[in-house]
Amino acid sequence: MTMEAELREKIATLTRIFAMRGLLGIHGHISAFDAETGRIYMCPGFAWDKATTQPGDLFVFDLKGNILEGQGRRVPIEWPIHTAIHSRRPEVGAIGHLHSPYATAFAAVNQEFRPVLLQGSMFANGVPIFPERHLITTPDLGERVADVVGGGRAALLRNHGTVIAASNPEELLFVSMILEDTARAAVEAAALGQLDFLEPEDMPANEGARLADRAQAAWKYFATLEARWDRQPPIGSVALG
Amino acid sequence: MTMEAELREKIATLTRIFAMRGLLGIHGHISAFDAETGRIYMCPGFAWDKATTQPGDLFVFDLKGNILEGQGRRVPIEWPIHTAIHSRRPEVGAIGHLHSPYATAFAAVNQEFRPVLLQGSMFANGVPIFPERHLITTPDLGERVADVVGGGRAALLRNHGTVIAASNPEELLFVSMILEDTARAAVEAAALGQLDFLEPEDMPANEGARLADRAQAAWKYFATLEARWDRQPPIGSVALG
Amino acid sequence: MTMEAELREKIATLTRIFAMRGLLGIHGHISAFDAETGRIYMCPGFAWDKATTQPGDLFVFDLKGNILEGQGRRVPIEWPIHTAIHSRRPEVGAIGHLHSPYATAFAAVNQEFRPVLLQGSMFANGVPIFPERHLITTPDLGERVADVVGGGRAALLRNHGTVIAASNPEELLFVSMILEDTARAAVEAAALGQLDFLEPEDMPANEGARLADRAQAAWKYFATLEARWDRQPPIGSVALG
Amino acid sequence: MTMEAELREKIATLTRIFAMRGLLGIHGHISAFDAETGRIYMCPGFAWDKATTQPGDLFVFDLKGNILEGQGRRVPIEWPIHTAIHSRRPEVGAIGHLHSPYATAFAAVNQEFRPVLLQGSMFANGVPIFPERHLITTPDLGERVADVVGGGRAALLRNHGTVIAASNPEELLFVSMILEDTARAAVEAAALGQLDFLEPEDMPANEGARLADRAQAAWKYFATLEARWDRQPPIGSVALG
Repeated sequence: MTMEAELREKIATLTRIFAMRGLLGIHGHISAFDAETGRIYMCPGFAWDKATTQPGDLFVFDLKGNILEGQGRRVPIEWPIHTAIHSRRPEVGAIGHLHSPYATAFAAVNQEFRPVLLQGSMFANGVPIFPERHLITTPDLGERVADVVGGGRAALLRNHGTVIAASNPEELLFVSMILEDTARAAVEAAALGQLDFLEPEDMPANEGARLADRAQAAWKYFATLEARWDRQPPIGSVALG
Repeated sequence: MTMEAELREKIATLTRIFAMRGLLGIHGHISAFDAETGRIYMCPGFAWDKATTQPGDLFVFDLKGNILEGQGRRVPIEWPIHTAIHSRRPEVGAIGHLHSPYATAFAAVNQEFRPVLLQGSMFANGVPIFPERHLITTPDLGERVADVVGGGRAALLRNHGTVIAASNPEELLFVSMILEDTARAAVEAAALGQLDFLEPEDMPANEGARLADRAQAAWKYFATLEARWDRQPPIGSVALG
Repeated sequence: MTMEAELREKIATLTRIFAMRGLLGIHGHISAFDAETGRIYMCPGFAWDKATTQPGDLFVFDLKGNILEGQGRRVPIEWPIHTAIHSRRPEVGAIGHLHSPYATAFAAVNQEFRPVLLQGSMFANGVPIFPERHLITTPDLGERVADVVGGGRAALLRNHGTVIAASNPEELLFVSMILEDTARAAVEAAALGQLDFLEPEDMPANEGARLADRAQAAWKYFATLEARWDRQPPIGSVALG
Repeated sequence: MTMEAELREKIATLTRIFAMRGLLGIHGHISAFDAETGRIYMCPGFAWDKATTQPGDLFVFDLKGNILEGQGRRVPIEWPIHTAIHSRRPEVGAIGHLHSPYATAFAAVNQEFRPVLLQGSMFANGVPIFPERHLITTPDLGERVADVVGGGRAALLRNHGTVIAASNPEELLFVSMILEDTARAAVEAAALGQLDFLEPEDMPANEGARLADRAQAAWKYFATLEARWDRQPPIGSVALG
């Protein structure tokens, strides 16, 4: 398989997995970057039926934000998040802009995310928050988001959602799910008392290696679930998407 | 397709979409208005199986509340909401009276709704609340609700539910879902700290044009989901409906 | 259909509807009473697969708690709730002992239930709470629960669940769902601020007649949903049952 | 059936039931112990598709943590929990390390679990919490967890999850579900006011006998549900797993 075919396949699969888990919402989008060709593969934007996305459905952007393929589909208008981070961090192979409901709850109270579970120890140093109330629709805004993400794995966008920067689609999946699930645990536990947040010293020494290993296993697992998903819409008043 | 056929088709589809998302509850109802003929097309009321509604199932009211078609089905007793607003606002093509659970949570603490997410910026000026504890079963009550809605898109009904006034069924869908989802985010985030509400200056300048565009895309998306819905009832203790 | 056939049919259907909605839990049970014969028809107890209950599966008790039919199935050990109330209130045709999660939340903080939604106006005078921490496994305990229920429609059992006393199975369904859904609204809204409870003067004058009418419509609706239910178990960590 | 065949069958079934209920999460695992042979049967670990686990999929450990069978599958790295407790408590036939979301909420605020429902009376003396923030990946850590569990049925692991020690797989299922569901009730009720916890004197005198009886009935019930489960993945942002 060519690199393009592989990235298209993975972004399409990941788009469907995120749709299954309710992490994209109606507004989110994800991308993978081929550093050799400078091409960014990105799922369509607002109100696209992400649960059925196929490799041929993706947009191709260059690093300046020009659309090379995909005309006629709904443009993911916050593409500057992707171009800004892919431009400055060649080690980042995949980026997600998610409206995952629980991580976004921290963004709705304008608090830095801190983990309350060991599974979230990769975030023991916290997750910064982008403080401006704007959709990220211009290169300037994209640069300022990239400044907040810095060399890290994630940022919250105030009153808005999240950005995840990962080595590859497999890590994008796992990091995103850990962030969301750890946020869910915080929201549910907060009713019981003072949250008991991890401290920076709880960051494992070998976090990167552990992540690479677990991300591959988690990818295989969620791809299996996605393959048997009946693609029924959520019932009742769940998060938009 | 005639205007009547089109409005019937859209209200039936929207009734099913709202049933899928749990936004109507067992008590809610929606309508579309044909300004040329003065006819209001409205889904049946209490305990109607809204998930299977077809165009031929609708009631037809005139602006005085006379039932022109639909006799024998369960009357939506709060029809004065619809007649009052359709009578005074010809630009309103579709109205919903929803018992959507999260927006109604604000009505259960008697607080004006304020958005905590950018997606809800159309409500940055707030959503007024109708302060009387009554079902809206008389023309007088309908008029007073219409006074609170004013020229706006929505109102809460104290201890009761919501009213949404939109240009057409597509916008009724999108506005309703944005209100509910933004309310859901507020309820979930409130456990974490002080909610960080948008301010009036966060209202986008071109909100109306953006809404028209997004509402069309969202309609297509949710109609796709509804078409593949297996119509299974919700399991477990979810909101009534 | 004989009265016995009719009551068996209705209790079996209602058991399945309650299972669908997660209102019985693994511990709850419901009954109907035939005043002419003094026979009580009751669904089996703990861990019975209530989602598939048929008319022939029911226990028959007399008012003294003797088991006339049903030997070999799991006895609903809190039958004294049913015998005590059916003995003293001939107008009560159906009783439920539910572990519905949200109404039970009030019992877990030992607070009288008060409605925050107009749909719950039948409880505008409040719902009393039985203050003893015991399963209701003896006639004496049953009498004391019946004392707390009094002439009313419902009581909470502290740290335990609910009791609903209704004219017939249709009203048992509707009253139970209104209590649970109104409790759900309170739990969700409580994060936003001070709950805005109804007052006794919000009780409608003609509550009984309205209930009888709405209960018939709601029964038809939920029986329709139950008939198309695929009987899949709840997924994820939902209330026990 | 041999003891090995029976234990393999039960652990596979229980793994699927726990997957159905969302109690294992992506990280949890369970085991059964054959005291005669000293063999521990344990489901695979991280990201294994637990919803489809069969008897032949299990690992076999000895009490020193040597893997006797299962090479090539994903090792449950917290096996020292199992070996430590099985080594010192021959009456414990089955152990679970769960990431059940609501019980874990107590571990995220570092509070001892206390029951708010009569169904949780087996925990009326409280559930101790292991205070160290570590995955239990060494025999030393396993011993310290076993110290906290002591002769009891359960412990919380701070910022992490739970450990349940039961006589057999049937009791492991029931005890785990009671702990989780009682925790769920506490999380939901906490919004309404001060939780009304049971006291030690609310522990029934014959708790052990009652548990044995109810666990068998609950096992039959949940195995019936599992057998008809369509194995669809959870939709939306639910607990990881």
